[in-house]
Amino acid sequence: MAEAKQLSGAGLRGQSAGETALCTVGQSGSGLTYRGYDIKALADQVEFEEVAYLLLYGKLPNVQELQDYKARLKSMRGLPAALKTVLEQIPANAHPMDVMRTGCSMLGNLETEADFGQQHQHIDRMLAVFPSIINYWYNFAHYGKRIETETDADSIGEHFLWTLHGKQPDPLHVKVMHASLILYAEHEFNASTFTARVCASTLSDIHSCITGAIGSLRGPLHGGANEAAMAMISQWQTPDEAEDAIMGMLARKDKIMGFGHAIYRDSDPRNAIIKAWSKQLSEQVGDTVLFPVSERVEAVMWREKKLFCNADFFHASAYHFMGIPTELFTPIFVCSRVSGWAAHVIEQRANNRIIRPSADYTGPDERPVPGLEDRD
Amino acid sequence: MAEAKQLSGAGLRGQSAGETALCTVGQSGSGLTYRGYDIKALADQVEFEEVAYLLLYGKLPNVQELQDYKARLKSMRGLPAALKTVLEQIPANAHPMDVMRTGCSMLGNLETEADFGQQHQHIDRMLAVFPSIINYWYNFAHYGKRIETETDADSIGEHFLWTLHGKQPDPLHVKVMHASLILYAEHEFNASTFTARVCASTLSDIHSCITGAIGSLRGPLHGGANEAAMAMISQWQTPDEAEDAIMGMLARKDKIMGFGHAIYRDSDPRNAIIKAWSKQLSEQVGDTVLFPVSERVEAVMWREKKLFCNADFFHASAYHFMGIPTELFTPIFVCSRVSGWAAHVIEQRANNRIIRPSADYTGPDERPVPGLEDRD
Repeated sequence: MAEAKQLSGAGLRGQSAGETALCTVGQSGSGLTYRGYDIKALADQVEFEEVAYLLLYGKLPNVQELQDYKARLKSMRGLPAALKTVLEQIPANAHPMDVMRTGCSMLGNLETEADFGQQHQHIDRMLAVFPSIINYWYNFAHYGKRIETETDADSIGEHFLWTLHGKQPDPLHVKVMHASLILYAEHEFNASTFTARVCASTLSDIHSCITGAIGSLRGPLHGGANEAAMAMISQWQTPDEAEDAIMGMLARKDKIMGFGHAIYRDSDPRNAIIKAWSKQLSEQVGDTVLFPVSERVEAVMWREKKLFCNADFFHASAYHFMGIPTELFTPIFVCSRVSGWAAHVIEQRANNRIIRPSADYTGPDERPVPGLEDRD
Repeated sequence: MAEAKQLSGAGLRGQSAGETALCTVGQSGSGLTYRGYDIKALADQVEFEEVAYLLLYGKLPNVQELQDYKARLKSMRGLPAALKTVLEQIPANAHPMDVMRTGCSMLGNLETEADFGQQHQHIDRMLAVFPSIINYWYNFAHYGKRIETETDADSIGEHFLWTLHGKQPDPLHVKVMHASLILYAEHEFNASTFTARVCASTLSDIHSCITGAIGSLRGPLHGGANEAAMAMISQWQTPDEAEDAIMGMLARKDKIMGFGHAIYRDSDPRNAIIKAWSKQLSEQVGDTVLFPVSERVEAVMWREKKLFCNADFFHASAYHFMGIPTELFTPIFVCSRVSGWAAHVIEQRANNRIIRPSADYTGPDERPVPGLEDRD
């Protein structure tokens, strides 16, 4: 038990909580692989649906498998009437992650996973319908519009932009969405994925596992860093202004979002990829502020603190250039990461023991119960 | 890292994942204490609201504190109109734990925890309103009735029975509910509580934490054992028939629900307490079948396997004698355990590090991404 004591309060950091064949994070200080494929090769060469298939079905799809998979996902985008009614009850000032959590949970009432033989069907449904859920709510709550969620979009990323903006998106934006969803798809035993696995270990249903994971991703220490980065960089009009402000924040030891990582030591391999896309988008829209400001912040943080951008930092400007409201950044993360979460649930179910750790007791010794009249 | 490897697949059993001052489980093979008070003393001497206060506010309430607390809880039982509309969208054949999960999640959209300074207010609200949520849905879905949820009940247990049956419950039943809710209130780092703590460790909101915990409790390896016990014992008309059936199940190595425990070695201290209440209830209703059958099953399991009843086994008959439908057994567990879950969230927030374990990688070595046309 002595070794157990060492872990107390340490958030299980560096402790193995199980096995996975899905992902390696930072094994050489900076690497990220999904089932052995390097993240850069995936982001450069394939579509998000190929990565989701890889994570969920164990292999990259061939031509026919990919065509069938995309057709199946496309057929699953419609919202049940009861779910629309629920989404219409949620006010415009709600937290969009609460909307995702509630939408997923409600779906579980209407389309319950009766046994684990159905797991793939329900997971594919979630991948297909999550963009519909968030954008149906967003458009109804903010503009009173009941949108059509069965779009002709070819991909999940395109479906997201199409349902958000009500029109077929720019081809460059669709490419960026593929890369972005690939970068966010999977990341080993992070807190939301671990939440899904703890839930799965009780043999609960898939909607409970994913609902719980969404709740954990909502936390500001986990998801939401790209939203915080956006809030920060949008304050500044020039790189020099940004540099002055960052120097002040560092002097005051303010928390600066979008930098560093719990696991990576040297760099986050996702940063270069999304940064290149953000640059392309900035040129497309003729931006002369947000990208230069972001680059300067990156340079100052490295010069002053040797801190590198993580996946979230250049996602902020990239999403902004595509006209995505800041409050929907983390829900996009959900639309992607549901693939990784669900792959972990499948893996946990295949070799399960209930996750039930112990705790170090720090409370009072055993004591008698005082009568109601005798208490302070 | 060698010691990390040992944990793989073992569900973190026996490994400390943090500190708690709330509870000890099985320290002497059979004990259970809440903040140092033995479970038997609490179940014999206090009301559930005193235990909830103890867990959440750190001390047993005095006369004035208890009176104020119960008055506050009583004032918080009403359902917002939007939440009623949501519950009315959930079909009668839904899983009641999906209803609880969705009701809690929806509440988070309507009454969002804006900062942790509000945590007690939201937790008290959940304690007060959870019986309203499940019984509003149950009565609407099954009987088309929109019940009044603002009852005159003096306690949470009485409020549960009142909203379920639409009338003031029998005083004996109210006493049993106090004991039952006390027994289920808290149990250290079980899987649902650990789910709540992982979610809390991202600094997510209280509704996310509790929604996730409900999802984990839904799993058949965690909550639901009392429902499974009820399904089993209700098959048999006499103790002899039960004994024959159990012997057959043991011979076939069937899983028998309601016996043994992951932590307790000698006995579950909650069993004697709920068994005594079940006996009183069986006498009140003139039962000559269910309680004798249950006692015989207990005796046979001990004689044959040295397996003891856990908290769930005599809960099945006790709840049944009070006219509670079997499918609502686990939601009652939620109405109680939300006190323990929330106390753990408060504790995690007070001394937090994000819970982010590692994993042992068992997947393929790094490999190149094949072109779409080159895949099997």
